[in-house]
Amino acid sequence: MTVELVGTADRTPRSREFSALYAEVQHFYAQQMRILDGPDAGGWPDTFTEDALFERPPVSAPVRVRAGRTGCVRAGAAREREAGSRLDHWIGMLDVRPQADGSLRTRCSALAYATPGGGGSRVLYVYVMEDVLVPVHGAWRTAHRRVTRDDLA
Amino acid sequence: MTVELVGTADRTPRSREFSALYAEVQHFYAQQMRILDGPDAGGWPDTFTEDALFERPPVSAPVRVRAGRTGCVRAGAAREREAGSRLDHWIGMLDVRPQADGSLRTRCSALAYATPGGGGSRVLYVYVMEDVLVPVHGAWRTAHRRVTRDDLA
Amino acid sequence: MTVELVGTADRTPRSREFSALYAEVQHFYAQQMRILDGPDAGGWPDTFTEDALFERPPVSAPVRVRAGRTGCVRAGAAREREAGSRLDHWIGMLDVRPQADGSLRTRCSALAYATPGGGGSRVLYVYVMEDVLVPVHGAWRTAHRRVTRDDLA
Repeated sequence: MTVELVGTADRTPRSREFSALYAEVQHFYAQQMRILDGPDAGGWPDTFTEDALFERPPVSAPVRVRAGRTGCVRAGAAREREAGSRLDHWIGMLDVRPQADGSLRTRCSALAYATPGGGGSRVLYVYVMEDVLVPVHGAWRTAHRRVTRDDLA
Repeated sequence: MTVELVGTADRTPRSREFSALYAEVQHFYAQQMRILDGPDAGGWPDTFTEDALFERPPVSAPVRVRAGRTGCVRAGAAREREAGSRLDHWIGMLDVRPQADGSLRTRCSALAYATPGGGGSRVLYVYVMEDVLVPVHGAWRTAHRRVTRDDLA
Repeated sequence: MTVELVGTADRTPRSREFSALYAEVQHFYAQQMRILDGPDAGGWPDTFTEDALFERPPVSAPVRVRAGRTGCVRAGAAREREAGSRLDHWIGMLDVRPQADGSLRTRCSALAYATPGGGGSRVLYVYVMEDVLVPVHGAWRTAHRRVTRDDLA
């Protein structure tokens, strides 16, 4: 609201369209990661489609997210939680590429911070996340996720 | 400007509206945190409303931000500054929920990095920040802030 | 798409314009940093203008980016790469100020994470980056970059 736009060429309709999409996707990930890090992460699979696949090469074949969240959570992260640490996932450096079929291909960097009960946060992982997002009843859902460059892989 | 939007359904007016708001809020926080981390953080209370309250349960009752910034700065952060470290606050994973009265309820994750004069940055805190933002003379201001999951609390 | 906007005053055209620009710039940096951290960072100078200058006071006089990327990469970062570590650059806390000549002045915080081959990510740098961006054939390019508060400086 405090912004001054002096002498700047008008953004194109295409740019305005992209902007709306970009904010939607940022907002979607904020919600998905909040659920993942929250006290009840049980709703996390609901941010994926019914048949969503999760890939973490080279560890394993793709797993179905809805078939059980435990299959998707890193063993290391699980150990942190069991040890009483809080996890905070962040995403950033987001790229969004709309596809002809209405889906989106996204790519972002992700961070996970671990914070023990006594304090002393640290970076747990830095990785790259590539998603296919599809609209389901007016909301974005992850249909496919591929996590790479994960040092625990 | 390099974006391709092929075959994507048009964003709704509601989505475009949200996008504009989302960028405004991101921009507001970038400015607020820059002031907080700058050489003269004295202007930081001006990014709050006159009667803004700051809550950090369970440490204390809410404090009035304008009544004195020192009351709102964490003791740990103050110690870092006194020891010659620079602080860098980040926010991310932003959620924005417009309210019927024109205010916004926001929620985000926040990070504070500390960097000693000799180098060697580290994550100092990871916390969650929940704000009520209100428009004041055409600019967003924080009317209420609640910081939680702070390990120094 | 799941957003509710109840009773919020319409964003102004100026706000919508800013939003479009803000998303464009976030997207630009995501691409620029991805190239920088990728397996072939050779394309990184192409995200700058032909005569772009890079400043890192007080180390040296501004260097021309296109004259050789090595001149712009921090010695410390180079050492990390040589030692087998992956680097991940993030930017955040972005400010964008359109100028009368159509260029943009941006300011953001930047982080670099280093991840050794065996795992154990850590924050390598926290710094501030100030750019002048100009449109070149419909895409943003960095015409001038100034990095400050870098502890290796």
